[in-house]
Amino acid sequence: MGLKGELFLPRAYQTGEKNDITDVPGIKVCQVTLRKGGVNTGVTAILLGSDIFKQKMLASGQVINGFGKTTGLVQINELGTLEIMTNTLAVGTCWTALTRYMLDRNPEIGLTTGTVNPVVMECNDGDLNDIRSLPVKESDALTALALAEGNPPLLEGNVGAGTGMRCLGFKGGIGSASRLLEQYHVASLVCANFGAFGKLRAGSRLLGQELKDAVLALAKAENNQLYARYQKGRGSIVMVIATDLPLSSRQLGRLARRSAVGLARTGSYIGDGSGDIALAFSTAQRVSHFAKEAESFSFLPDSQLDPVFEAGAETIEEAVLSALVHAETLTGFQGRRVYGLGDFL
Amino acid sequence: MGLKGELFLPRAYQTGEKNDITDVPGIKVCQVTLRKGGVNTGVTAILLGSDIFKQKMLASGQVINGFGKTTGLVQINELGTLEIMTNTLAVGTCWTALTRYMLDRNPEIGLTTGTVNPVVMECNDGDLNDIRSLPVKESDALTALALAEGNPPLLEGNVGAGTGMRCLGFKGGIGSASRLLEQYHVASLVCANFGAFGKLRAGSRLLGQELKDAVLALAKAENNQLYARYQKGRGSIVMVIATDLPLSSRQLGRLARRSAVGLARTGSYIGDGSGDIALAFSTAQRVSHFAKEAESFSFLPDSQLDPVFEAGAETIEEAVLSALVHAETLTGFQGRRVYGLGDFL
Amino acid sequence: MGLKGELFLPRAYQTGEKNDITDVPGIKVCQVTLRKGGVNTGVTAILLGSDIFKQKMLASGQVINGFGKTTGLVQINELGTLEIMTNTLAVGTCWTALTRYMLDRNPEIGLTTGTVNPVVMECNDGDLNDIRSLPVKESDALTALALAEGNPPLLEGNVGAGTGMRCLGFKGGIGSASRLLEQYHVASLVCANFGAFGKLRAGSRLLGQELKDAVLALAKAENNQLYARYQKGRGSIVMVIATDLPLSSRQLGRLARRSAVGLARTGSYIGDGSGDIALAFSTAQRVSHFAKEAESFSFLPDSQLDPVFEAGAETIEEAVLSALVHAETLTGFQGRRVYGLGDFL
Amino acid sequence: MGLKGELFLPRAYQTGEKNDITDVPGIKVCQVTLRKGGVNTGVTAILLGSDIFKQKMLASGQVINGFGKTTGLVQINELGTLEIMTNTLAVGTCWTALTRYMLDRNPEIGLTTGTVNPVVMECNDGDLNDIRSLPVKESDALTALALAEGNPPLLEGNVGAGTGMRCLGFKGGIGSASRLLEQYHVASLVCANFGAFGKLRAGSRLLGQELKDAVLALAKAENNQLYARYQKGRGSIVMVIATDLPLSSRQLGRLARRSAVGLARTGSYIGDGSGDIALAFSTAQRVSHFAKEAESFSFLPDSQLDPVFEAGAETIEEAVLSALVHAETLTGFQGRRVYGLGDFL
Repeated sequence: MGLKGELFLPRAYQTGEKNDITDVPGIKVCQVTLRKGGVNTGVTAILLGSDIFKQKMLASGQVINGFGKTTGLVQINELGTLEIMTNTLAVGTCWTALTRYMLDRNPEIGLTTGTVNPVVMECNDGDLNDIRSLPVKESDALTALALAEGNPPLLEGNVGAGTGMRCLGFKGGIGSASRLLEQYHVASLVCANFGAFGKLRAGSRLLGQELKDAVLALAKAENNQLYARYQKGRGSIVMVIATDLPLSSRQLGRLARRSAVGLARTGSYIGDGSGDIALAFSTAQRVSHFAKEAESFSFLPDSQLDPVFEAGAETIEEAVLSALVHAETLTGFQGRRVYGLGDFL
Repeated sequence: MGLKGELFLPRAYQTGEKNDITDVPGIKVCQVTLRKGGVNTGVTAILLGSDIFKQKMLASGQVINGFGKTTGLVQINELGTLEIMTNTLAVGTCWTALTRYMLDRNPEIGLTTGTVNPVVMECNDGDLNDIRSLPVKESDALTALALAEGNPPLLEGNVGAGTGMRCLGFKGGIGSASRLLEQYHVASLVCANFGAFGKLRAGSRLLGQELKDAVLALAKAENNQLYARYQKGRGSIVMVIATDLPLSSRQLGRLARRSAVGLARTGSYIGDGSGDIALAFSTAQRVSHFAKEAESFSFLPDSQLDPVFEAGAETIEEAVLSALVHAETLTGFQGRRVYGLGDFL
Repeated sequence: MGLKGELFLPRAYQTGEKNDITDVPGIKVCQVTLRKGGVNTGVTAILLGSDIFKQKMLASGQVINGFGKTTGLVQINELGTLEIMTNTLAVGTCWTALTRYMLDRNPEIGLTTGTVNPVVMECNDGDLNDIRSLPVKESDALTALALAEGNPPLLEGNVGAGTGMRCLGFKGGIGSASRLLEQYHVASLVCANFGAFGKLRAGSRLLGQELKDAVLALAKAENNQLYARYQKGRGSIVMVIATDLPLSSRQLGRLARRSAVGLARTGSYIGDGSGDIALAFSTAQRVSHFAKEAESFSFLPDSQLDPVFEAGAETIEEAVLSALVHAETLTGFQGRRVYGLGDFL
Repeated sequence: MGLKGELFLPRAYQTGEKNDITDVPGIKVCQVTLRKGGVNTGVTAILLGSDIFKQKMLASGQVINGFGKTTGLVQINELGTLEIMTNTLAVGTCWTALTRYMLDRNPEIGLTTGTVNPVVMECNDGDLNDIRSLPVKESDALTALALAEGNPPLLEGNVGAGTGMRCLGFKGGIGSASRLLEQYHVASLVCANFGAFGKLRAGSRLLGQELKDAVLALAKAENNQLYARYQKGRGSIVMVIATDLPLSSRQLGRLARRSAVGLARTGSYIGDGSGDIALAFSTAQRVSHFAKEAESFSFLPDSQLDPVFEAGAETIEEAVLSALVHAETLTGFQGRRVYGLGDFL
């Protein structure tokens, strides 16, 4: 994946092989990017593993700030299991696409057993994308899901759901990072679309302050009106944290809440209008949909979770920085233009 | 509306004029019912008032049991405001329909201001409805929304989202009730689809026990296999509580949680698989979308809420009983047949 | 224990041998009752088992209505473990007594390992008890804890923390009930001090309505001013639910929330000023304080929890009725007099 | 107060006059420090204003990580009001002292009206304090409360509840900071006792890394065993945020949750064993204990909260740094010695 956030970040733990969420065995991601005219958007599909309806994973959704429209959290938190996930603004359309996808693969759903709980997360890419035209179609989501099964390399930056996002006054998008804890992984994938211009922090550097004058000078030279608005925090971030450590849904909730630590260190103060939503799950153990008897699970003691929490926070921090490093300057809807961080480094 | 739950219920407060949710000034409801072949489903649209995006209402969503797929709760609970609501299993499709409806009426959404938070609630009508065929279309939801503007009389029982529901072993569906507290109203509308056969309680009568033998005798005579399954609690209930009392979102949350009281008294023990979700809102005051300065609100003291809580619980109890009284025997998908309570009274 | 709530309650499950919380193996209760002059109060100590600091139990505290001062819930809910519990209004004093008790038995606390999390629950007995004189002393709590080790029979009614309580306009206090689910137990102990006069429900009987005139006639004859105030819901209830079923802390939270079902059926509408707090724990498995490696646990599938939820709700309902049946008329602080339900049956 | 955290912190807002919590009009703090033999502890009492029982403040308690024993949060969050607060490890003793203090000032408590909800927060100073000897007495808490009425200057570092605390491997304790937003204040007071050695961050400096070798060299030279243990995160932080802005309890909850932002920026990853608890309140408006009619309140729109959130996070960050700057090297219980940050700057 080339350079990610390592330019700036003091790492407490070693990265996984690819330093992204696909380092967690079984996790596959594919993205469909839509760019045409004012449309700059897409879908990011994350497959958690095979047979996810009948053999559910432990999971927890946590709302760091609730200005968001993520679906599925209610049931995840009551039952501690997760069924499937994708990512886009077109929540309703993707919800239906996910439902179709699961109906196709599970003929008993709705006939002899219950219904599926689609998890759809979203950020608002309305600055750069003609969002009112509802450009994402069910077929885009189904394409992303189908292609994800081939386990393609994970792309970052202006791709999939991240295509039209902006973050801390720079071009945002998809970012990912992973950490190794002995043989286990903790990894995150984010769609970064939050924060106020000038606030970016990266490890020991207050990059927002450092680069502010250069960015504003360019915006002035190009008569770019957008940056006047970016003084104020805007947008959201959705964060997916995967691990193969044996954690309970309660422990995964604790891990998901540590996303606020990584987020704060990149310059977010968790603004009012930011839908900051984290979803953590463990691939280590499955919960059988049809179990009738008590099932056994293994969990790390809470007293051993500090490295997990620290690594989790670190992957969120690096995933945001990686999104910024990968996302390139983009001119979108109504000619609005957001600069890539890389142009100023 | 004819008889509702008054046969059974000791009422502590007087009912509103119509004894349903449209007694709250400004609330309008319309329902689209789909019945054809194995399809027995529909949409129930609730309009809360005019200009609901720019002038939001205070609201709170409460999860009594989280086995449900209601969308929009995350943002309601962070911001304490509500934007719009409908009701059906086809959550994704209705979500998109609601989004279109709001985009049409608010040209600034997604251009100069933020996005809308559609609230969609659902129960699973898969026993009586060919749910896998995804019969609800965007146009059904848009029709219900458009017709609701004409403020038609509220129908109960096998109508709209309630068409294919069953409750406590009888035919369920839409029910509603209201109470007067001086000049103010507390009112509920439910889609009742919960509970185990034999557990129905109604005021001083243990109706489930009383009627059990008669129902089972009929099921046996008709070779109705469904009742073997109904020994176990199944299904869900979504509950909407409206008031014109000046309550804060925190107080509305407290009111919404009292829905468990009404529910328990009808025979629910809030089963594992029951998505029991309550949404309460107040029409008394609006929160301006574009406010820049501090705004004034008036709230009842918490110490004066006991009658509000008791009336709220009572409207939930009566709304469930009213759904049961109004819903008639229905033979649906794959010839499955659920009996109306009225056949046994 | 003589008659409990069985006069009124349709039971779905068989009771345990003693039909109280000590049916759960390992649970011991002892109570110290203080009655002298205007003092009518006490302490109810519940011992959960041996070595509870180093081998913690899974637990969950749930706030049905938060007008209460229970301590310890924060840590229980983060960690899902429980350390010890007692019961009284004198929260601070009992907190310190519990701390001393645990320091004496665990010399490593505060030296080589962390501190203890005392759980103290309370209701306000200020109607019948001279509460401002702070009559409960550390020695009372330590006595109750010490005597509990001898596993005395559980007393109900006007005893321990329940001495000065009133409930639904009658004399309240300590009540308990249990249910058998195959070889397992679900059991509750409550300190019942809630509800408005006239609202008592018991199974198929609206006892509050039935007995209202008789009670008011007696109150008038005796010039008893208290009943004018009892039209309004007052007081609180704290509820302890124990089980030897293998449940996770998340599942115990779900069980604890079903306490609202039992409570609603006795006539509570969960009033504004009622601190309705439930604490559920399982004796089935222990979490080692010093564990370094992943530990194994066994949990019932959520889909099998319906009988547990129903039995839990039923034990709360019967425990409240049992408290009312056992508590006798008491004349307390400033000559205030509350009647026992038994005087009217 | 001399230098605080300004050496390191990029400030987005101007500080208040004293740059501490007493900049908020009406807030008074006094601390009692106990140092004798192995005892190094104390009490920090915060008075919020006059007549706080009958005229309550809006407030919210938020649990960032729940390994703590703070009392009173249950009732604050149900009712959104706050009554009184102090700070120490001796929770039970201070709870009783607060109760006495309020009983003395409110003769109607427990007689003609309800009871008081004492809020007591705590951190564990067992490294440097002989905590098992329970050195804090009721009289210490009552002294702190009485002296606070004289509004003495706020001391920071090794004082009151902060006397025996350690933070990020350095001596911790009491710290405070404030910010001005036009004529309004946002201010925090913390008792900082959290974090792993080597993790301290301060604005653009990774101070923990920078100073690690120097600290370990000194520890080695002095045969100081404590630093081996400090590799792991330990301890807790309790955080009080005061403002005179007109915020609702829901908004105060949002503000309190931003404490995680400030905390993360100082190097916390919110460790497993850290009781990270925040309490925010507003002095702008009072809720009358005896109100019978609807009362009016004024609230900032949520869309205007970003500066409040950012300033709140900044005061937490600076309060922690200020605690570290003020706290001096201390040799405590069993000769354990923790170094002040100032010795290495």
